[in-house]
Formats: sequence, structure tokens, C-alpha cells
Amino acid sequence: MADPFYVVEHKALEAFAQQLLEGAGVAPHRAALVASNLIFGNLRGVDSHGMQLLPYYVEQLNSGLIDGAQDGAPINESGATMLYNAANGLGAVTSDICCGHAIRLAKANGIAFVVARDANHFGAAAYWGRRISREGLIGFAFCNASPIVPPFQAKEARLGTNPICMSVPGPADTSWLLDMATTTVAANRIFKAYHNKQEEIPAGWAMDKEGRPTTSTNEAFNGLVMPLGGYKGTGLAVMVEILCAILGGGAMSTEVGGLRVKDRPMGVSHSFLAIDPARFTGAAEFDTRMDKLTNYLHSAAPGAGFDEVLIAGEPESRFEKARAENGIPLGPGEWQRLLDWAGKFNIAPPASNHNA
Amino acid sequence: MADPFYVVEHKALEAFAQQLLEGAGVAPHRAALVASNLIFGNLRGVDSHGMQLLPYYVEQLNSGLIDGAQDGAPINESGATMLYNAANGLGAVTSDICCGHAIRLAKANGIAFVVARDANHFGAAAYWGRRISREGLIGFAFCNASPIVPPFQAKEARLGTNPICMSVPGPADTSWLLDMATTTVAANRIFKAYHNKQEEIPAGWAMDKEGRPTTSTNEAFNGLVMPLGGYKGTGLAVMVEILCAILGGGAMSTEVGGLRVKDRPMGVSHSFLAIDPARFTGAAEFDTRMDKLTNYLHSAAPGAGFDEVLIAGEPESRFEKARAENGIPLGPGEWQRLLDWAGKFNIAPPASNHNA
Repeated sequence: MADPFYVVEHKALEAFAQQLLEGAGVAPHRAALVASNLIFGNLRGVDSHGMQLLPYYVEQLNSGLIDGAQDGAPINESGATMLYNAANGLGAVTSDICCGHAIRLAKANGIAFVVARDANHFGAAAYWGRRISREGLIGFAFCNASPIVPPFQAKEARLGTNPICMSVPGPADTSWLLDMATTTVAANRIFKAYHNKQEEIPAGWAMDKEGRPTTSTNEAFNGLVMPLGGYKGTGLAVMVEILCAILGGGAMSTEVGGLRVKDRPMGVSHSFLAIDPARFTGAAEFDTRMDKLTNYLHSAAPGAGFDEVLIAGEPESRFEKARAENGIPLGPGEWQRLLDWAGKFNIAPPASNHNA
Repeated sequence: MADPFYVVEHKALEAFAQQLLEGAGVAPHRAALVASNLIFGNLRGVDSHGMQLLPYYVEQLNSGLIDGAQDGAPINESGATMLYNAANGLGAVTSDICCGHAIRLAKANGIAFVVARDANHFGAAAYWGRRISREGLIGFAFCNASPIVPPFQAKEARLGTNPICMSVPGPADTSWLLDMATTTVAANRIFKAYHNKQEEIPAGWAMDKEGRPTTSTNEAFNGLVMPLGGYKGTGLAVMVEILCAILGGGAMSTEVGGLRVKDRPMGVSHSFLAIDPARFTGAAEFDTRMDKLTNYLHSAAPGAGFDEVLIAGEPESRFEKARAENGIPLGPGEWQRLLDWAGKFNIAPPASNHNA
């Protein structure tokens, strides 16, 4: 991080997040869930899905775009499936309930699929994958998102970064956990390169405003995010759009709102898939086989320029360990926005170390 | 196609494929299934998964690596799930049965997941996605594959091209249908560039043998296929490995055999996921909403260098229409291998037009 930043102990920061949400009128049990979800993002180094989101949530709670008192309700439970109306509740609140249903239905049926519409930002998808995998099930989480990505061969945005997350049962700090946007990189990597005055970005990240691939940071900043690998990334984003918005009946494509959109609720859809390994090779055998696969992957000789081979989730687990010990760094603008809300709500902020 | 080639009417070619399989001792109803699966690949322009596979099948049938008389059998049916022993049967034969179970279980439960182990090549995954979506369900097909892809940051192969396929209900010729390997491109695109003496390939396709990204066709030919977008492609390939081999209890990673491997059966695992839209927004509403999403995507202004925006499956549907009318082109080596087997089995080959 090039800018000066502030470091806050993670538990103190989580308590602060909860207080701010309570300041915005959210009941303590709901505020605690959202705070836990945000700190999870920061702990794992995914700062775009951490405390940085909180001021947006507070603004949307204040303006009524998010209904902080809503839990939502099932529309239809049928077999191993459920359609859920999130009713503009906080994303973490309705997702927690939906994951609970997915877990219950998967334990009863071996697999379950829950789709929620009219939902809000649920933070890092990995939080929900792990929410399910902690119960001994394979957990998937998907959501559609604000339209900032053009489909392959286009120069107008139609899709979100539509992430795919999959988490397997096992120890939280070593288990394979995939959480990926279906673009080559998250849009904020491009913003960061721009703000750091870095002239070039790697090939494959972005397109200029005419849809031509570019490595110019300036053109990319004024241009478009690139779908992962062209038509495949678009295909995966549409897959997620179908599993969320099409099945759920919620806003799709350009209908979706966003954190910075003020004329309508975000209206994203979430979906949660849970699979019980006990119905296949068995839970213990599943763990043994996951270890074996992880060993196969770790045993591959590193390529030129690398000294180790990591599995999905391993970089984030390292962040989690380090930040649990050393605290969470927050940018100066981000910290100030939190302090501003603390002032308005008359809340004392936690201690922070200022690093230059 | 630069080389001279032979063109055969698709129905005659399908009948020929069936005869060749019967020549190798396969019963007519099983031979017909495999032939239909192979011709589907050719019709859709996916020649790597068409008739080109047939001589490998015949060799493996002859050597006993594939058991052409096997249907396999369920190991465990439980709730909305099934674990299936494919028992080295022909891939299309056991996949057809597994898709039947997935359809039955999804109609009963809203969603179903069937995993088959000890299976063989099932041709184009799209065939199985569509097998399920023809019944009004969303169909997914996955399989693990021969280890030719290094994980991200490595220079030794540990994973297959592990495809992801998803197909939605609707008219076969216009519906969205995703079928993608989790590498940037299929390995045979690199082989083709090499055989065509094309000096450079696009960035992102391949690495040299030390795991360094390369655009030299020669280095790529002697090197490694690149996972789609680096760690994300590896993550998706591992996702497929888990959904197939880890859950199924079959061969994983470097344990998997291959079409050219003669000391053990292929031993891949397949999995099939089916979801019933009727349990969510309803079947009719699902169709309406898919049309709407397709329109959103088609309506995006094309980027520089393109004059239209296509959805997944659209290029293949165009191939299907053209090749159904004009016949299927086969390379000279490929055609000769089929003629050789026809000679051995005393089968008259269909008429072909020779084009230079």
C-alpha cells in the first residue's frame, strides 16, 4: 500500500462495525452478522469486500434502499429447493438465513439449491461458501452484480463481475476455497493502478471504450473490464446470471442497481448450492481424497519465477493469519469515512496505529 | 482447413460410425448412442470430440480397456443424489443412463446430482447438458480428464482440461449452451498451429516447458497448456475434479488414463446436475426471462473488429445448421483411419466428396 494507512485490531474493528450499523438503526443480531461478514473480507485481504462497503450500506439504510429490519421470507419450498424473497434486507442477514435453509435441505436430500431475489450485497462470497462447508457440506455461492462488464465481442456493459464460490469441508485455514469474479481481475485493480499512476496494466485485464484490448491504464480506466478469457468468462457470468436472477425472478443485466446507484435498490439475486459428500464416497473418505488432491497439486514443480504452488484460498488464509495477529490496514479516505459516521452516531472509534 | 479433406453426409456418417462400433462388438443400441454423440461433436464444429475419437474407442474396445457390453450400475441412490459405477462401459452409454437418473431425480426433488466413476470419454459435454435440458431442466455436465495442464504457478501437469457445460431448456438451435474447457484453449488448437507452421500463437494460450508464458508455437508445442486466466482456470478445473473424481471415488489428477494410454483404463469420472426451473419462477417464466437476457446481450454494441455479439452455443448452432446441409468435413488422416477399420470389419464406407 503506497498511501499512509491506519491499522486497527480486527476484533475492535468488528465491534466498531457493529456499532455503526446499530447507529444506522440495525438490530444488534443483524448488525453482528454484517460486521462479521465485512471483517472476514478484510482479514482475508479482500479489502474491496471489507469495511470499505460499510459507508455505502449506512447510506442505503438511511435512504431506505436497504431495509435493515427485514429478514425476508421463503416464497416456495419444494423438494430440495427454495425460492426466497430477500425483500431488500441486508445481504448478510438474508444470506445467512438462506444458507441455513440450504444446509437443512441438503442434509435431508443430499443436495439443495436456494435462490434469493431482491437482495443486497453479501460481502465476500467465500463467507457463504464457508458458512455451508463448516457444516460438512460442499458449499457454493453465486450472485449477480451491477452491470459493468461487456459480453464478449461487445463494448457496452451488460453483466456484473458475477462471482463463483465453492468451499469444501475441512480445517478453515488449509482447505481449498475458490472465490472468483468472472472477469480477469476485479475492476478495483484497474482503479488502483490508475490512482497509483502506473502507466501499464497486464494484457487481458481490460479493454478501451471501443472494446479493443489495451494495456494502457488510462484507456482501461476510461474503458471496460474484460471477461475472463473472452467468451468463457462471459459464459460463466451468464451461468451465474441464470442461477441467480433468471431462476429467482429478480433484476437481471442492466436492471441491477449498485452501491452507488441511488434511484433504486440494488436488487441482486443470490444462490446457494449445498452437496453432502456423505451421500457419495462418504465424509471421511472425502476429506482423505481432498488431502490427496491437494498433495498432488502442491507436489507439482513450480514454474519459472515461482517458488511454490498454492491452492485456491491459500493466499487468503495467509492474509487471515497475519491480519488476525497484526491488525487490519485501512486507507486514509476509508478510515475518515468511518470516523465521519462515528461522529454522526456519537460512537467512540477503536484505537488505530497510523503508518506512513 | 488447409489440408485436402473429405465431406460425408452426416446421417450416412452416423450410420457408418454405428457399423464400425458394431464391428468392434458393440450391441446396436449402444453403438447407436455413441455414434449419435460423436456426430453431434462434428455437426457443431467441435471436431476434436467427433469421429476423430472413434478409432481410439475401437482400439480400447479391442484391447479390453473399454467394456463395450457394460451399462454400469448404481452404487447408491439417496435422496436427490446417485453415485454410479460406470464399470468401464462406453462413456456415452453410461452417461445416457446417468442423465436419465438425474432427470428422474430432479423431477421428483427439484434438483439432482449424479456422479459416475470408472467411466470413459463421453464426447462433447454439450451433448449431455442438452440431453437434460431437452426434458425442461437446466442441465450441467462435468468430467475430469487426462492430466495435461499444470496448476497455476507450476510447470508439471496435474489436471485435465476438465470441462464445464450448462444447457438451458428451449429451442435447440437458439438456446444458450455453454461448453468450455477450463484451459484458455483446447490443446489441439496449439497442435494445429504447430502443424500449420504458424510461428506465433496469441498470448495466454500456453507456457514453455519451464512454465513461462510464451507466444512461440514451437515452445508451446513442447510446453504446457495454460489454465484459463491463471489461478481462476486452475480453480475451476479443481472444482470439476472435486465434483467428479473426489466425490465419485474415481481416479484423480495424474491417476487418470487417456485415449492414448494403453496400460490402464481411462477411469474418468462424470457428474450431471439437473435443476427444475418449475420450482423457481416457473417453466414458462424461465423461458421468457432467458429470451429477455439473450436480448440484453445481443443488444450490446459490438466492440471494434466485431459486427455482432453472440451468446454461448450460437457459433456451434450455426455450424450445426451448415453441416447438416453440407456434410461433415474429415481430414485425410482421420478419414483413412476410419477406412482402415472399415476394411478390417468388412464394412462399406459411405460416399464422400474429396475437396482440395
